[in-house]
Amino acid sequence: MTQARETVSFKPGEVILYPGRPGPRDRAYRVLSGLVRLEAVDEEGNALTLRLVPPGGYFGEEALFGLERGHFAEAVTEVVLEALPKEPSPEEMRALAQHLAEALARAYRRIESLATQRLKNRMAAALLELAATPLAREEEGVIVLHATHDELAAAVGSVRETVTKVIGELAREGYIRSGYGKIVLKDPEGLKTLAQSKGDGR
Amino acid sequence: MTQARETVSFKPGEVILYPGRPGPRDRAYRVLSGLVRLEAVDEEGNALTLRLVPPGGYFGEEALFGLERGHFAEAVTEVVLEALPKEPSPEEMRALAQHLAEALARAYRRIESLATQRLKNRMAAALLELAATPLAREEEGVIVLHATHDELAAAVGSVRETVTKVIGELAREGYIRSGYGKIVLKDPEGLKTLAQSKGDGR
Repeated sequence: MTQARETVSFKPGEVILYPGRPGPRDRAYRVLSGLVRLEAVDEEGNALTLRLVPPGGYFGEEALFGLERGHFAEAVTEVVLEALPKEPSPEEMRALAQHLAEALARAYRRIESLATQRLKNRMAAALLELAATPLAREEEGVIVLHATHDELAAAVGSVRETVTKVIGELAREGYIRSGYGKIVLKDPEGLKTLAQSKGDGR
Repeated sequence: MTQARETVSFKPGEVILYPGRPGPRDRAYRVLSGLVRLEAVDEEGNALTLRLVPPGGYFGEEALFGLERGHFAEAVTEVVLEALPKEPSPEEMRALAQHLAEALARAYRRIESLATQRLKNRMAAALLELAATPLAREEEGVIVLHATHDELAAAVGSVRETVTKVIGELAREGYIRSGYGKIVLKDPEGLKTLAQSKGDGR
């Protein structure tokens, strides 16, 4: 028998989960529609995006395993979520394990990139990753990414001032066109090459 | 009925898994004894430790989910492993999901630390993390860590020359005593404070 599942909705910018040790009423979630961002925020208010969770993905797994949560979960777009039961079915546990294995592989690539790549190259990788989310739209044959410099800073682990400099550099070199709150990916292939190299001087 | 499980052994330094897309005979493993290191190696041969897997932990999960593996798995000490069946039991899948959730939480802390912390503070965190593995032993009331500067460089995502400079700094400031291939943690509390702060000038 399939039980009706509990669903919850959030508006863009709403906080879904807070950092800390999950309480007894905390739940893990599966995203049904929209995009969720997991982000760490330091004492000075600088945000760092850890994971973007698209439809079909999971988050809040700390509640299932009694782990301390180090980040916020926030709705980027309108989102609809399904709360997981305390004891997920074997099929759902397998799907969650697969999601975690994929997230871990991405986190490891991110660690490699932070340890070895220059900011400009990391930014190219971040732009391409964001281009595959609902933050990007194809408009007249080109990919347009709707993201502020603050959001880009959170994606690469830097601050807005530095990001503005690097975005300017990428624009001057013809990889992108940068406008208010949006970025046009003019040369995705060139960005891919940049994303796969370490950068000068490393 | 409990089936006899297939176990395999490796000697220190032996490679257990290689990077790439897992083939049909690839397996995921549970560590029964010893310590396994997952590490990425770049074109110049610089290693970066991604995960240390102690007894009870899992690795090679790419084989279960058809994911590309970006790293090597290597035996740090003598290790004995149990190969997981292609379709793990629900209990084992839950234990694997929990291991992955914990590894992901650690990877996120590492991303935060790489994005925001200075090398000296990251090194303090790495020394404390390594102190909780079989690479460390308590000798006459103090923790002695058996690790080369190359291994420390791989743990923090840096190179040996830079690590030697930072280790010298930590020694001069009284946090550690450094000898050939080993490091005495003289002031674990002080290291903890260092590990939790960002460092000067950030």
